[in-house]
Amino acid sequence: MKAITVTNPDDPSSLELTEVDTPQLRDGEVLVKVHATSVNRADLLQAKGNYPPPKGASEIIGLECAGVIEDPGTTGRTTGEEVACLLSGGGYAEYVAVPEGQLLPIPEGYSLSEAAAVVEVACTVWSNLGMLAGVREGQTVLLHGGAGGIGTFAIQLCKQLGATVAVTAGSAEKLETCRKLGADILINYKEQDFAEELTGRCDVILDIMGAKYLEQNLKSLNVDGQLVIIGMQGGRKAEINLGALLPRRLSVRGTTLRARSVESKAEVVRSTVENVWPLLDDGRVTHHIHTTLPLADAAKAHALLDSGEVTGKIVLEVGEV
Amino acid sequence: MKAITVTNPDDPSSLELTEVDTPQLRDGEVLVKVHATSVNRADLLQAKGNYPPPKGASEIIGLECAGVIEDPGTTGRTTGEEVACLLSGGGYAEYVAVPEGQLLPIPEGYSLSEAAAVVEVACTVWSNLGMLAGVREGQTVLLHGGAGGIGTFAIQLCKQLGATVAVTAGSAEKLETCRKLGADILINYKEQDFAEELTGRCDVILDIMGAKYLEQNLKSLNVDGQLVIIGMQGGRKAEINLGALLPRRLSVRGTTLRARSVESKAEVVRSTVENVWPLLDDGRVTHHIHTTLPLADAAKAHALLDSGEVTGKIVLEVGEV
Repeated sequence: MKAITVTNPDDPSSLELTEVDTPQLRDGEVLVKVHATSVNRADLLQAKGNYPPPKGASEIIGLECAGVIEDPGTTGRTTGEEVACLLSGGGYAEYVAVPEGQLLPIPEGYSLSEAAAVVEVACTVWSNLGMLAGVREGQTVLLHGGAGGIGTFAIQLCKQLGATVAVTAGSAEKLETCRKLGADILINYKEQDFAEELTGRCDVILDIMGAKYLEQNLKSLNVDGQLVIIGMQGGRKAEINLGALLPRRLSVRGTTLRARSVESKAEVVRSTVENVWPLLDDGRVTHHIHTTLPLADAAKAHALLDSGEVTGKIVLEVGEV
Repeated sequence: MKAITVTNPDDPSSLELTEVDTPQLRDGEVLVKVHATSVNRADLLQAKGNYPPPKGASEIIGLECAGVIEDPGTTGRTTGEEVACLLSGGGYAEYVAVPEGQLLPIPEGYSLSEAAAVVEVACTVWSNLGMLAGVREGQTVLLHGGAGGIGTFAIQLCKQLGATVAVTAGSAEKLETCRKLGADILINYKEQDFAEELTGRCDVILDIMGAKYLEQNLKSLNVDGQLVIIGMQGGRKAEINLGALLPRRLSVRGTTLRARSVESKAEVVRSTVENVWPLLDDGRVTHHIHTTLPLADAAKAHALLDSGEVTGKIVLEVGEV
């Protein structure tokens, strides 16, 4: 089959369609013919060699896709069934092997390309804000990077949960996108100090900056507040004043979706389908696609995401490769 | 009334019985004639001027007591009723004003002095390990300072919850006390590196050391592990590698009981009485009193706790003052 590979390990933009082996199915996996995948920031890190796949996962980039079951393997699934897939890797390809627990239905009225744009964000946002932090009505949630793939989805989901939503973004245009999706408090991080604006007000913060924002995030938390870190674009190592945690009973929590075990991923998928899919089915929460490109243009897609000029998701369609 | 006060602000050992005003009741408070109080590490910090009482709380030291209701105020309580009390301060005295939500029954078969030895540890341990961390059967819990007031209680409670209990302590004698209370894994921190012994094994850690143990505590946590910090005897500021949190989905959480609002304390008390009192009533969990002294000997009691030679709690009896 054809798949995108990094042809020059020293050049993360050397993403080219090359001929590779079609994946072998393990017990409990189905083979999916990929219609579309979409781009995550982790894909950029992996292309640079900074985010090696977990043990046993495909070496091919790509954390989500939608397509059609080509071979149900030992599962009871049906050949030809349309599915969305949460992947540990392997999405930038014609075929991918997927544990059955990581298959999701196509949301009502969604094309396969649209479905490929919501799996990773839905599972990430729900596992962190729903399952871990337990966001509930009346709380205030701060989302950093409100106009990104995660942000555009999380704004809508948090509004459905009855929360007040604060976002940070780097331009008036991005903040306007956030506002249209329902965000209540808009902060341009290039012009404002979010911790000054939000001191002591946030019950939950979904963070992608890590070290750079740690002190400001802690300052922004309310009593019983939770800082949930899912990315470290601003570095890993920081000084922490534990004395800031105790009187307000704060929590600093970090998670990744990809490092979860097959069992743990299946649990996330089950809970996401149960709690988020009904919101997609009737349009209360919707996908937000920046652009759609052919899979062969993966390098272009990575450069685009890296530019910071993307609002929502970039979809890659496999089509005829 | 008589109460212990710090008579020389520069000398934390200048704890003397002096004549002070009897507390005035606010709405919803009862006046309790104190029979016994007990000593917490926070009391030593307060005597040193390092732990100011929360706004509105008594300036007098003492976070728990047991005694008899002298004046029920506006509550429906009865004069003469025996009660245990969780306090924001004021326990080292003949009388103390207590919000009704912070009154607890005397456990079955307990003397008032015994009851005064369990309130703060029960509420602290339950609010952190039960309500916050949700310790459950099959998990492994690490308790630092296993032979102290918190530790001796937490060992027993964790065993009742079905957990495997690891403890650290500074002598073979203290570890033997922990073993007798049910601890499964005994670590002498003067001779062993607990993080080497427990790498990746602990689901929950109850920590009193703060900065000094942060890195080792994180190393000791299992996937989805929670580090709950309730004391900072080893300092406040530390470097944290957030990269250690994400792949194992770790949480660092800090709490204090004293800084909670009246409503929040009442919630802790309700849940503690519901979940822990039945275990005290039938002896599955029991008090662990190191020694009992007259209230006038508060300075001696503080010196004793500060020596590190205490196993369990020190009770101060008011008696005839």
